[in-house]
Amino acid sequence: MAKVKVYVTFKDGVLDPQGKTVKNALDKMGYKNIEEVRIGKFIELETKNGAGPSLKKEIDEICDKLLANPNIEQYRFEIE
Amino acid sequence: MAKVKVYVTFKDGVLDPQGKTVKNALDKMGYKNIEEVRIGKFIELETKNGAGPSLKKEIDEICDKLLANPNIEQYRFEIE
Repeated sequence: MAKVKVYVTFKDGVLDPQGKTVKNALDKMGYKNIEEVRIGKFIELETKNGAGPSLKKEIDEICDKLLANPNIEQYRFEIE
Repeated sequence: MAKVKVYVTFKDGVLDPQGKTVKNALDKMGYKNIEEVRIGKFIELETKNGAGPSLKKEIDEICDKLLANPNIEQYRFEIE
């Protein structure tokens, strides 16, 4: 069994309306120290098989095909 | 300026319907090696001031009040 942590974030330059909304909410709540908020996804996967040489390729495929939108999002992952 | 990375995940035992949906999609796509999927939020914050002694308290407050639902979610963060 292996655990994989995937981080999906918007590419630089892509507008993040959810992050902007949270930023505005924080302003109104008085947290003026926060200058920017970007919101992404944090995905934890558990695999049946251990971390073999093919796992990295498999996770790349899964990210490209399902977890991230390659037009506007980037991803990185850690295999544990 | 400091950067803060916040990870918000469901507490253990809380059902994650979005994760379940992704798990089912992966099954149908043939990725039988993936046994469990849990989906959370990954939030990046940038602050005006540097990482002082009060920043940890401020981020805890922001997580409790806005970023995480303390009833069903847990969070952790890293200050860089």
